[in-house]
Amino acid sequence: MADPSLLEFFPTPTDAPIVVEHIHEEFTSVCPKTGHPDFGVVTVRFQPRPAREGGACVELKSLKLYLHGFRNEGIFFEAVTDKIRDDLWRAMKPVWLQVHTSWRGRGGIRTVVRAESGDVPERYRV
Amino acid sequence: MADPSLLEFFPTPTDAPIVVEHIHEEFTSVCPKTGHPDFGVVTVRFQPRPAREGGACVELKSLKLYLHGFRNEGIFFEAVTDKIRDDLWRAMKPVWLQVHTSWRGRGGIRTVVRAESGDVPERYRV
Amino acid sequence: MADPSLLEFFPTPTDAPIVVEHIHEEFTSVCPKTGHPDFGVVTVRFQPRPAREGGACVELKSLKLYLHGFRNEGIFFEAVTDKIRDDLWRAMKPVWLQVHTSWRGRGGIRTVVRAESGDVPERYRV
Amino acid sequence: MADPSLLEFFPTPTDAPIVVEHIHEEFTSVCPKTGHPDFGVVTVRFQPRPAREGGACVELKSLKLYLHGFRNEGIFFEAVTDKIRDDLWRAMKPVWLQVHTSWRGRGGIRTVVRAESGDVPERYRV
Amino acid sequence: MADPSLLEFFPTPTDAPIVVEHIHEEFTSVCPKTGHPDFGVVTVRFQPRPAREGGACVELKSLKLYLHGFRNEGIFFEAVTDKIRDDLWRAMKPVWLQVHTSWRGRGGIRTVVRAESGDVPERYRV
Amino acid sequence: MADPSLLEFFPTPTDAPIVVEHIHEEFTSVCPKTGHPDFGVVTVRFQPRPAREGGACVELKSLKLYLHGFRNEGIFFEAVTDKIRDDLWRAMKPVWLQVHTSWRGRGGIRTVVRAESGDVPERYRV
Amino acid sequence: MADPSLLEFFPTPTDAPIVVEHIHEEFTSVCPKTGHPDFGVVTVRFQPRPAREGGACVELKSLKLYLHGFRNEGIFFEAVTDKIRDDLWRAMKPVWLQVHTSWRGRGGIRTVVRAESGDVPERYRV
Amino acid sequence: MADPSLLEFFPTPTDAPIVVEHIHEEFTSVCPKTGHPDFGVVTVRFQPRPAREGGACVELKSLKLYLHGFRNEGIFFEAVTDKIRDDLWRAMKPVWLQVHTSWRGRGGIRTVVRAESGDVPERYRV
Amino acid sequence: MADPSLLEFFPTPTDAPIVVEHIHEEFTSVCPKTGHPDFGVVTVRFQPRPAREGGACVELKSLKLYLHGFRNEGIFFEAVTDKIRDDLWRAMKPVWLQVHTSWRGRGGIRTVVRAESGDVPERYRV
Amino acid sequence: MADPSLLEFFPTPTDAPIVVEHIHEEFTSVCPKTGHPDFGVVTVRFQPRPAREGGACVELKSLKLYLHGFRNEGIFFEAVTDKIRDDLWRAMKPVWLQVHTSWRGRGGIRTVVRAESGDVPERYRV
Repeated sequence: MADPSLLEFFPTPTDAPIVVEHIHEEFTSVCPKTGHPDFGVVTVRFQPRPAREGGACVELKSLKLYLHGFRNEGIFFEAVTDKIRDDLWRAMKPVWLQVHTSWRGRGGIRTVVRAESGDVPERYRV
Repeated sequence: MADPSLLEFFPTPTDAPIVVEHIHEEFTSVCPKTGHPDFGVVTVRFQPRPAREGGACVELKSLKLYLHGFRNEGIFFEAVTDKIRDDLWRAMKPVWLQVHTSWRGRGGIRTVVRAESGDVPERYRV
Repeated sequence: MADPSLLEFFPTPTDAPIVVEHIHEEFTSVCPKTGHPDFGVVTVRFQPRPAREGGACVELKSLKLYLHGFRNEGIFFEAVTDKIRDDLWRAMKPVWLQVHTSWRGRGGIRTVVRAESGDVPERYRV
Repeated sequence: MADPSLLEFFPTPTDAPIVVEHIHEEFTSVCPKTGHPDFGVVTVRFQPRPAREGGACVELKSLKLYLHGFRNEGIFFEAVTDKIRDDLWRAMKPVWLQVHTSWRGRGGIRTVVRAESGDVPERYRV
Repeated sequence: MADPSLLEFFPTPTDAPIVVEHIHEEFTSVCPKTGHPDFGVVTVRFQPRPAREGGACVELKSLKLYLHGFRNEGIFFEAVTDKIRDDLWRAMKPVWLQVHTSWRGRGGIRTVVRAESGDVPERYRV
Repeated sequence: MADPSLLEFFPTPTDAPIVVEHIHEEFTSVCPKTGHPDFGVVTVRFQPRPAREGGACVELKSLKLYLHGFRNEGIFFEAVTDKIRDDLWRAMKPVWLQVHTSWRGRGGIRTVVRAESGDVPERYRV
Repeated sequence: MADPSLLEFFPTPTDAPIVVEHIHEEFTSVCPKTGHPDFGVVTVRFQPRPAREGGACVELKSLKLYLHGFRNEGIFFEAVTDKIRDDLWRAMKPVWLQVHTSWRGRGGIRTVVRAESGDVPERYRV
Repeated sequence: MADPSLLEFFPTPTDAPIVVEHIHEEFTSVCPKTGHPDFGVVTVRFQPRPAREGGACVELKSLKLYLHGFRNEGIFFEAVTDKIRDDLWRAMKPVWLQVHTSWRGRGGIRTVVRAESGDVPERYRV
Repeated sequence: MADPSLLEFFPTPTDAPIVVEHIHEEFTSVCPKTGHPDFGVVTVRFQPRPAREGGACVELKSLKLYLHGFRNEGIFFEAVTDKIRDDLWRAMKPVWLQVHTSWRGRGGIRTVVRAESGDVPERYRV
Repeated sequence: MADPSLLEFFPTPTDAPIVVEHIHEEFTSVCPKTGHPDFGVVTVRFQPRPAREGGACVELKSLKLYLHGFRNEGIFFEAVTDKIRDDLWRAMKPVWLQVHTSWRGRGGIRTVVRAESGDVPERYRV
């Protein structure tokens, strides 16, 4: 299973509020019902805590390796989204965090799942 | 007629609020006036009740089979949209629910119908 | 001139609030100054009154025939937009109504005109 | 099964060589293995024999009704394509004829099938 | 009916071979069967005879006025295409001439018609 | 310099509030530093005062001629935008007015300038 | 390793020449140098031998399962392409066969590999 | 390192509030971990103080030269964004300022960073 | 009038055959009939003679200045195209040369003009 | 200067003819006249010699490092294209090789340069 201990972080470079968004366009996991692979785009968006509060940003390559950990796991769309949010929220402790997953169609139906933690500004919530 | 007893559900995997969207790009029904087929895209978006309240999410394949039930029914655009909303609202009991249908042109006119139940957040209402 | 008596209506199929949008991509009228044809897209969006209040929705084919009535009329962009809104508002008596017209370029300038009646929700007003 | 006797024709309006292409974007049939609906685009392209030879062009509405005949038939992509070509070739007797079908994805795979009869010019063969 | 005597011409400005293409995106005529308007794009492409042979090019505004002449005529797609080709071929006497018409969908079917006169180079024939 | 006395107006055709948008995609002026031409898109959006208050809408062709007046003027992006707003605001006296200019890249940088007068509704301010 | 014995076939449904194309948009394998996953689109195009010669077409679901066999294999882009071509050529014995693979960028470089067997018509070779 | 003393300014041409946006599509710097080049789009958006308060706008060519100063610097995405905001905020003293950077993918992940200073209107904050 | 003496050239850097294409997206001239500005895209494509034959390539900035010379000239589309071809052919003496001009719509008609000199390979002639 | 000794190769994996294409979307060099950076897309396409003749394919990462060598070099578009072709031709000895470079606009002009070595099939030459 995807291992959150792979995630690495570097200190937020400023006290000013910044918003960071990582869009992973090569996500794949496995459908727990059929065993067939699923493919999607995972978007992670967050405001790190500022430098003066010891804030941290996830390091890009470690995020990639963490996400690769889902490659051969059987897991539903909703649970993937929830787990990524949980793992990042616990490890990075940002001001707020969003995780959106957008999946390629199955049987003519495309799915999008949105999860978030903390006080996400209204302007980012769609 | 499309049969809501075909719909299956699985428990919401988390207590955190998530929003789920299914976009069915292969919907077809029949025009009740002309008997000719209609084609459209049906989007279902909802916030399931959380795990601790016994919340549920619609299972993807059962949603597909339910929607296939309209294939040979004569029914207006507005009534299709209203029925899907009603059936899902009753069976899934989500926090809120939206159903949008977007139809291919007839005589040079494309149509979109929006219906919803529950307290849909303003940010999702367009 | 376009004849609103051509418009036909059917009863709103539900008491739940729905929003309907018709996008007519083949609109044409005539410029009253030059006599040359104009071409545009006419979008009509409204919330019908609910079934319990005797609400009604415009029937698609009758809307098409009504809009064809502008084909050989000399009329400005702003007046076309205003007349369609007036005719539909009077005949359909919806909760609210918007009419947008978007015109192909003339002399390098494209024009869009927006008109509305009733209490259009802020989310639909752009 | 789709019935070629529904096809109607009108005389080619000229002796000059013309090429006609009809693109039907709302084709649906049923997968003979799974019973699930398939959706695709059917393109028919042909050069009718000239007026002086009694040439004919397929009438648009009758083509639509003929294609609707596949709606509830279980039939493979390759066989659909071949049957449409056969039926039109026999009934219309054009100089040459192409039928291309392009199908929405199933399990992540989109399919295109090409069939033709007569001496199709090289420039149309891709 | 569209009147070819409206067409005006100016002398080809050079002896070097040039190819000219006019794409009219606002063509409309009327379906002779239903009386409903049709909308399409008309493309005219030709190589004018060179200046030394008294070659001529069609003047843009006169072409527009000529094409407007179809606005209220009931005429099939194939016949529109053939008539434009005939009228331009007779009046302009180019080295070669192509007329393509591409029509907005009717009943889910879009149509393209191609006609030509003279020795059109292979590279322009698709 | 672009001459606002070229602008012509016609009475607002209605007392109902309408919003008009003109998008001029063929704007050109000259850079005052380099003397090289600049190219951009100018968007003018406004709510005219209603008919009962003697409101007026700018006439399309006169707007085009006015904008052509910048063709050979050396003027910065910000000043072009400000002048168009000033000239239209003074001459048309609308309820509110926006002018946006969007410029083709120079040295790899594209520029957008936004100016407005009056009480522009929040929904139009992005 | 991807196992060609998974491939299933059905008889070509006609003696007329047809061309079939399968576009698999969810292909993934592993880079043999870095161990990181690669993602691409695999296109298989072929002309099956006709029915009278015992020709066969690859069955869609079996093709999907065969391609899934590369999911955890370390293999270069060029070798993937070559193996798919070899396996299909041997098992299906078509008149001709093309395999194109198009890979998502690595380090800013996207790669396309083309392989083929048999006498591919010139018109399909780009 | 990028040198803010290269930045030049010209006086705001008006007292009316304007919003200026510069989109630099050719930004490149170097990854401090790998030494490989990074590529992105840098968007700078601000409201200059008005003319009467001695407001200033950054001059386009000087902005370009300043941004070129990052070409061979090893610096993280978040720090690039923060430094550009700091340098422009100190030198230009606008009413408010936003800097967004959008980076080409690395290992299948695209990144966007947003930073701002001053009281940015809600409508510009996404 | 556009002055070909502004054109500058640099020696072809190789004996190997190369093909060079310059696409000028900001061309403007004036319609000789109406006096209104015309806007288009000018594409110049050529194979320079090789270094060993003293071949030359047009310098980019001088090409821009030459093309700016048409800015206030009244000239037809066909004549613009022919003059650019003539001027470049005489001054650069390439192996072959193409000039294509593609003009923004006037009265709903877009125009493309193609001219060439020398033995243009068939593959470049569309 | 870009150093061809950085290029690494691996043996062609098959005797069957394959065509490989690498598209580098992050190329940058420096204009030798102005000292400003240039940005473009470099496409390398080739048929390697087959395995039995000791054919080789360029390794992706080494190609990237070689192309990075142009980052701070002042060099014309035509010369960049020619040098990449020369270096790859000498080192890889393929059956044929194409190098295309497509550059972002400068002063409103975009440029494309094409070079090739060996007997490139006609189908790849546009």
